[in-house]
Amino acid sequence: MRSRLLGLIALLATCTCYGQDDSLMFRKIADEIMLHGNCYNNLRVLTKTIGHRISGSPEAAKAVIWGEKAMKEAGADKVWLQPADVPYFYRGKESLELNIGGKYETVEALSLGNSQGTDGKPLKAQIVLVHNFDELKALPDDAVKGKIVFFDYRFRQDLIFTFEGYGDAVRYRGGGPTAAARKGAVGIIIRSMSTGEDDFPHTGATHYNDSFAKVPAMSLGNRTSDRLEQALGKGPVSAIMTSEAHMMPKLVHSFNVIGEIKGIETPERIITVGGHLDSWDVGEGATDDGAGCVQAIEIIRAMKALGIKPKCTIRAVLFMNEENGQKGGQAYADSAKSKNEQHVLALESDAGGFSPRGIGLVMPAAQKDKIKSYKELFLPYGVYDFSREEGGSDIEPMNSKLKTPLAGLIPDSQRYFDLHHTNNDTFEQVNHRELKLGAAVMAQLIYLVSEHGLN
Amino acid sequence: MRSRLLGLIALLATCTCYGQDDSLMFRKIADEIMLHGNCYNNLRVLTKTIGHRISGSPEAAKAVIWGEKAMKEAGADKVWLQPADVPYFYRGKESLELNIGGKYETVEALSLGNSQGTDGKPLKAQIVLVHNFDELKALPDDAVKGKIVFFDYRFRQDLIFTFEGYGDAVRYRGGGPTAAARKGAVGIIIRSMSTGEDDFPHTGATHYNDSFAKVPAMSLGNRTSDRLEQALGKGPVSAIMTSEAHMMPKLVHSFNVIGEIKGIETPERIITVGGHLDSWDVGEGATDDGAGCVQAIEIIRAMKALGIKPKCTIRAVLFMNEENGQKGGQAYADSAKSKNEQHVLALESDAGGFSPRGIGLVMPAAQKDKIKSYKELFLPYGVYDFSREEGGSDIEPMNSKLKTPLAGLIPDSQRYFDLHHTNNDTFEQVNHRELKLGAAVMAQLIYLVSEHGLN
Repeated sequence: MRSRLLGLIALLATCTCYGQDDSLMFRKIADEIMLHGNCYNNLRVLTKTIGHRISGSPEAAKAVIWGEKAMKEAGADKVWLQPADVPYFYRGKESLELNIGGKYETVEALSLGNSQGTDGKPLKAQIVLVHNFDELKALPDDAVKGKIVFFDYRFRQDLIFTFEGYGDAVRYRGGGPTAAARKGAVGIIIRSMSTGEDDFPHTGATHYNDSFAKVPAMSLGNRTSDRLEQALGKGPVSAIMTSEAHMMPKLVHSFNVIGEIKGIETPERIITVGGHLDSWDVGEGATDDGAGCVQAIEIIRAMKALGIKPKCTIRAVLFMNEENGQKGGQAYADSAKSKNEQHVLALESDAGGFSPRGIGLVMPAAQKDKIKSYKELFLPYGVYDFSREEGGSDIEPMNSKLKTPLAGLIPDSQRYFDLHHTNNDTFEQVNHRELKLGAAVMAQLIYLVSEHGLN
Repeated sequence: MRSRLLGLIALLATCTCYGQDDSLMFRKIADEIMLHGNCYNNLRVLTKTIGHRISGSPEAAKAVIWGEKAMKEAGADKVWLQPADVPYFYRGKESLELNIGGKYETVEALSLGNSQGTDGKPLKAQIVLVHNFDELKALPDDAVKGKIVFFDYRFRQDLIFTFEGYGDAVRYRGGGPTAAARKGAVGIIIRSMSTGEDDFPHTGATHYNDSFAKVPAMSLGNRTSDRLEQALGKGPVSAIMTSEAHMMPKLVHSFNVIGEIKGIETPERIITVGGHLDSWDVGEGATDDGAGCVQAIEIIRAMKALGIKPKCTIRAVLFMNEENGQKGGQAYADSAKSKNEQHVLALESDAGGFSPRGIGLVMPAAQKDKIKSYKELFLPYGVYDFSREEGGSDIEPMNSKLKTPLAGLIPDSQRYFDLHHTNNDTFEQVNHRELKLGAAVMAQLIYLVSEHGLN
């Protein structure tokens, strides 16, 4: 009896929303991308011929030209560049020396993104260790004044979805400099927001508060952090920080890259899918977020290759400046608002090119329920989790300014924070099948929403 | 109304089977393994100090000693070695030269496991390409006689669960030599059972039929297979195969390694968990199946560290000779049967140390339903798929000889057949968090079954 009831309910919950045709189209899309997908090749070209590409840099400008070409090769009906003026963080030379064990040694370290270095001059000071903000607050000011604060907060490896661990730990990267400067510190060092069992330091954006000194800020990998923690348990340790890092004085003219397939029934209704083209100035920006870019381009390619003529207009967008300003995302939303465009959905892939597990949803409950009613269609492709409220940084302004419903690809999260913002974020870390499967799931979602809408 | 009904049904389906305590214990187990797990360190030692370890080899003997030590260090109440006589495949020197482009060049190739080489002498013959067995059958015998058959069958990348693609393609590795020899061929080359976008050849067991010649058999990676296919489209290609591969004449005395925690309420009821200690004689046998071994040991360690006193006896088994004989698995089942042991469940991890997604179940429907009723407990750990009928090769004899219910860890399958049986199956391909999460899920399942049984 129970199973009959369940069957009936399952039938009621699903049969009105999709049909056999959708299931077949899901299969066609996946076959096309798994067998003939070009996203992995595109990622190889982006990462190996351009490499990392921080906003405002010559590499970012090259990536724009590459993106335009790749969109055209994918078969987009129309490709254009959308202007966005972006900040430019310049790293320059940097080093960190620690006198662990009686003499100074140079360790692997990275200046935090947007940080103000030491004008390239050595800054020598004693290190004071705190595990968290509370410990820092509890210290008398003169225990901190003139010193370098080491925020030794560990990424919570017990949290299974690693983005939760990141959300928990990233406070120290963002707020560390101000908290330390408030007590008179002259610099900070952080244990990276890293799940890695290695020594790669992780960069990423930090912030300053104009009321306090802009102190230099560097990150250490987990192994060096462990050594420093141990050494500080035995006695005082001093550091010499040297960094040319600074923000360039002027914004740089840059672009989002946009490719479009015109809808055949309701071309005024637009579905956006994207990733971000900029990266940090380390590694190759493969996982963050070359993967999302080539997946967005792949959706254009696969739809064209399959001869799909979508009801709605499909726009693939390679956003510029996600990492330190979101100027591209804002420009896209501002343009959409000023033109009074009608946006049905915006989908972003910015959590790595790993095996898809879910689709995050930022939209009213009724729309979420509609997408969840397609659950059985997605299951053969490994996608089962529709519970997370996750979109993406670049599309967030679409939601706040135009109330556009957002979706975010949720890949397996276990490896992401081993690689995020490090020199180890390279092409080799991305698996071709995982990357393609993510693109397939994104294309499937877009197809469904284009066919059936969200209301 | 619908949601109320669903809620009621969900309640009926779950509340009788587990409680708050189980959910808390799931959390404790996961925390212990994610924060303090030793399996990744154990895998480093096994792969980096011993490396690959084919049955019968000196390395396999070292691995037995390592396993015994690791079980003791994990805190097992009792550790012992269970004898199993195993075959020993010896590879020796091997090379394959192809005259693609007018002159012979040496390509990356591996003799198939259990194959009979050329006694180390060069075997020169023309290559005949077939895509499948039907094409071979359709050829007249004199088109095959005296030639080397190239089975150019592609792994089906459209199948999302890659073990299905493997099951489809592996016929050519297993049955290729006999099918070719039946028509008078003097050797075979196969396109590897590989999802890889690379050139690693994959070895693995082949079989001979005593009625036909035991022809030498080698595998090529996908890139060389592509080149050979192209070259054969333009004109004849010859090969020179040279291989010392052969089975050693005598079985070698070897062992399963067993570690046990004695049950406190029903010690006569046994739950087995294992992986296999042998590997092919290439790479480091990290994914296949060092991962499963260290996960089994981790379960002992974590239970002891948490002070869990299981109702049933928990036995971790490192099986010997999964790859080419299953002598260890048979010895274990034979011993259990002869002692009239009572086995509640046998669980194997032999699909890689990747993020867990499901648990395969080989047992009567009522027992499956009981495990499926715990679904909500597993979901926070990324495990949602209980639909597959998968146990493991080493525990299969437990089912066929003792009717023991089987379970198999189902990790994400996308990367497995890039690495399987290749020189690229190294420690570096295993992620620490993914490995630990798999161990945690196995420990959780074992805990539940020990507490609540399967009936």
